[in-house]
Amino acid sequence: MVAAPLHDRRPSPINDRYSASSHFLNQPAWAVQLANLCWIYDNNKITIEGATSLAFSEDVRARFAGYGWAVRHVSDANDLAALGASFDAFRAETERPTLIVVDSIIGYGSPNKAGTHSAHGEPLGVEEVEATKRFYGWPENETFLVPPEVADHVGGGMRERGGGLRRDWEALIAGYVAEYPEQAEQLNHMQRRTLPEGWDADIPGFPADAKGVAGRDANGKVLNAVARRVPWLVGGSADLAPSNKSRMTFDGAGDFSAADRAGRNLHFGVREHAAAAVANGLALSKLRAYQAGFLIFSDFQRGALRLSALMELPLIHVYTHDSIGVGEDGPTHQPIEHLASIRAMPGMIDIRPGDANEVAEAWRALMPIRHEPVALMLSRQPLPTLDRERYASAAGVARGAYVLADPPSGAPEVILIATGSEVAMTVDAYERLIADGIRARVVSMPSMKLFDEQPRSYRDEVLPPSIMARVSVEKGSTFGWDRWVGPTGAIIGMSTFGASAPLKVLQAKFGFTVENIVATARTQLGLEHEANPPGVTLETSESAETLAQ
Amino acid sequence: MVAAPLHDRRPSPINDRYSASSHFLNQPAWAVQLANLCWIYDNNKITIEGATSLAFSEDVRARFAGYGWAVRHVSDANDLAALGASFDAFRAETERPTLIVVDSIIGYGSPNKAGTHSAHGEPLGVEEVEATKRFYGWPENETFLVPPEVADHVGGGMRERGGGLRRDWEALIAGYVAEYPEQAEQLNHMQRRTLPEGWDADIPGFPADAKGVAGRDANGKVLNAVARRVPWLVGGSADLAPSNKSRMTFDGAGDFSAADRAGRNLHFGVREHAAAAVANGLALSKLRAYQAGFLIFSDFQRGALRLSALMELPLIHVYTHDSIGVGEDGPTHQPIEHLASIRAMPGMIDIRPGDANEVAEAWRALMPIRHEPVALMLSRQPLPTLDRERYASAAGVARGAYVLADPPSGAPEVILIATGSEVAMTVDAYERLIADGIRARVVSMPSMKLFDEQPRSYRDEVLPPSIMARVSVEKGSTFGWDRWVGPTGAIIGMSTFGASAPLKVLQAKFGFTVENIVATARTQLGLEHEANPPGVTLETSESAETLAQ
Repeated sequence: MVAAPLHDRRPSPINDRYSASSHFLNQPAWAVQLANLCWIYDNNKITIEGATSLAFSEDVRARFAGYGWAVRHVSDANDLAALGASFDAFRAETERPTLIVVDSIIGYGSPNKAGTHSAHGEPLGVEEVEATKRFYGWPENETFLVPPEVADHVGGGMRERGGGLRRDWEALIAGYVAEYPEQAEQLNHMQRRTLPEGWDADIPGFPADAKGVAGRDANGKVLNAVARRVPWLVGGSADLAPSNKSRMTFDGAGDFSAADRAGRNLHFGVREHAAAAVANGLALSKLRAYQAGFLIFSDFQRGALRLSALMELPLIHVYTHDSIGVGEDGPTHQPIEHLASIRAMPGMIDIRPGDANEVAEAWRALMPIRHEPVALMLSRQPLPTLDRERYASAAGVARGAYVLADPPSGAPEVILIATGSEVAMTVDAYERLIADGIRARVVSMPSMKLFDEQPRSYRDEVLPPSIMARVSVEKGSTFGWDRWVGPTGAIIGMSTFGASAPLKVLQAKFGFTVENIVATARTQLGLEHEANPPGVTLETSESAETLAQ
Repeated sequence: MVAAPLHDRRPSPINDRYSASSHFLNQPAWAVQLANLCWIYDNNKITIEGATSLAFSEDVRARFAGYGWAVRHVSDANDLAALGASFDAFRAETERPTLIVVDSIIGYGSPNKAGTHSAHGEPLGVEEVEATKRFYGWPENETFLVPPEVADHVGGGMRERGGGLRRDWEALIAGYVAEYPEQAEQLNHMQRRTLPEGWDADIPGFPADAKGVAGRDANGKVLNAVARRVPWLVGGSADLAPSNKSRMTFDGAGDFSAADRAGRNLHFGVREHAAAAVANGLALSKLRAYQAGFLIFSDFQRGALRLSALMELPLIHVYTHDSIGVGEDGPTHQPIEHLASIRAMPGMIDIRPGDANEVAEAWRALMPIRHEPVALMLSRQPLPTLDRERYASAAGVARGAYVLADPPSGAPEVILIATGSEVAMTVDAYERLIADGIRARVVSMPSMKLFDEQPRSYRDEVLPPSIMARVSVEKGSTFGWDRWVGPTGAIIGMSTFGASAPLKVLQAKFGFTVENIVATARTQLGLEHEANPPGVTLETSESAETLAQ
């Protein structure tokens, strides 16, 4: 899509003292032979607690050689000739990323603190600063001194050189626009984070279907429909694409590799953190990027996830296997607190669609977003596709929550609020309540964050303050639901970890059944009902009893 | 403390396909020369998305050699002689951990799926299972077959051998108890997770002090007071001990190293995940363990943090620098969503003490806990030490929340709820309100989880349902606070990331000031008041307006 000269080779020196991220990131870099990547390892042998030898004894050069990187060593950070030779060698490298290990002395020039950890964590102090200035032959009593040579250098050489480079660049761009008008328009969209006309024309509608479609499958279809029309949409998985269905499968999508730089599917390997961190980098480069995994593994990405929000990157985090719905895989693979953890993060938009058409509408809502990342939570198991002639249009997803079903006549007396895989069973509970003459409303709430951003009038329309009989249903932590059910409402959610069993068994164990939703709604209205299913006690906002094991 | 023969050398084979955790954990292992650690790397070259070569091209043996491990290679997983020789070499190793790379074929024996990724992610299917049985010379039509030789082997050799080993072990223990009664009693405490008499006798009380003590400093003092009396309390930091004050500094505490196995301070290096994961292992071995870091870095530990809760380990996670209170370090170092993320996790107990005496009481409350991890959130900045003769005793920490101050006469009309570093300013606001004739109550709420576990009667005593004029004050995400302030209460909290500025500036910017708390309380009561500080709009549970930037 993009001609090569616009994205020229340039060194990307990174001072990396965090050996952990160095491990996470270097493998993908090597696997795709990013020869224009150079890391400079500032080897000063000091950490906050003291010498690195306290807890670090590896041969970094041997490790990176093991990764397949070109490795160079400069034994003195002040040896400019050796540094220059290393940079030249990096520029000449065409097949491998480069690591340059530079041995240095922290606080160099400070007579009493050089090479010690106090030079890392503490100010030098007035006397030591003076002593250091003496070492450098710098005027001792001057502060914030900018010698005239520096001003000359910046004002003269650098400014001129920069001006020339800028003019060259602008000429290159102008030529490119003239020669490749179509690609130039794409670059323009990328740069402004806008979308081409008709970008959503292929998004499918899904017919009503009681058996339904898994969230992950619906998402795969919609992602592919969008990606075909947005050529700069790229992404991949940390070794889970066959399972989370995040692969772009249309002709020409291809696999990004050393041999195919135009491939749009990225293979991150079993490296969740790298997946999110690399996706951040793609988004910073103005590509529209997604990274996909199981929701439980978002735990390994929290740092990068947070940075996507802090940097206001419109990244798409696709998280499938979003609840105890994964069944037999058990508690280690069943996210519980993750929905709350994502919703509590500033600037991160949560969307947990309730059926295939809500998945489609989620993409319609998220693609135009320019400054916020989205976490899209999807089921592994099939979800019935609701009959949208009988119930409200899924277009309500864009507002975060919407009235999906209301009583055939009269004002609602109890509100059932559900998200994701719990919407369909909540609709079933609604049908039972209606049949019993109870005026129930169902609110589908795919996004707390988008709903919170709506004007007060709309929120009060969906959740009228006068109706305090409320039940929420979500296979996630109860934490945070009080906001929507109020002090007397009931929360059907998780206050323990999950368990390993078939989904139906877990649903009964944890109270995610039509019977329990009906019974809870009746209790909210002060009506009698059958006893709760065995083993289930409801957590209500009022009583805060925990779910029985 | 513990004599060597009880903790004998034994192989710890780990099948590790996750190269990320292999990097995190191998360094600490090598740095302390854990020669009795052996990892077996099942090198089948297959991941879920296909061959490992898609995203993985490192020389694992070269990498581990770089870490300083002893590395061995078995080129055929079916070569029992070569495997045996490798195990023998491991047993003979005395200075380094061992990695054995074993080349294998996934689905070995399956004629059509061996060596492919479908052997990883899918069932073989009936026909292929039969074909595989043919390959092994196994009866094709038998299912769940246990040949008599297996039963004989288990019933005979293994049972007898196990019985003998068990008897030897019991004799060893009996001898140990006789010879080392004091240490045996310690082992007994460890095994039952109980505490020696007088374990809390040295916990200091802190006198009232307007200037006060930083949460991290108070914690360092209390930790040391407890650790001196509980010899099996061990822990450390991921290169932050000088900053989070988590070091045990008394005589004999020492540093755990290859040379000193009795040292109790662990140096994890810059490896947050490893810190929490290793601490899990220490707790599983029945040591009482803590790991300490900045709260923001808990993001890198989520997986291990969750496992501490899932495994019901009484681990102590010490998190300092717990809010925007870190000031100039800016948004990348200011936790916002972390308090909510920790509270949403099942089984994880949150404690955020409000002053030095609440830190002391937090330790009194957490040390007896046997099955739940605790996350202890502490300030970097000094917190005034409240006058406990004027205000209620800090012993209320054990119940999660308690009435810290009440009107001199009459029932309260507005409740101010605060945690951690916001308690003192909330008490100041209370004093102003009382001076203005407003009957305010202050509730200190160091632990939502512990408070939620109290009986309804106590919770209603602290937060009477009839008093709905409420204000919460916490420098963390507003997410989750609706539970305590109710639908009409006001939440003074964070709904954006922080900013880089001195603490006082940030407090004014985000509304954490005595003036704002007073004004918000007055609004709750429908009283007039001075306009809000410039730039601050309150988020109330009712209006959900976001905090102005």
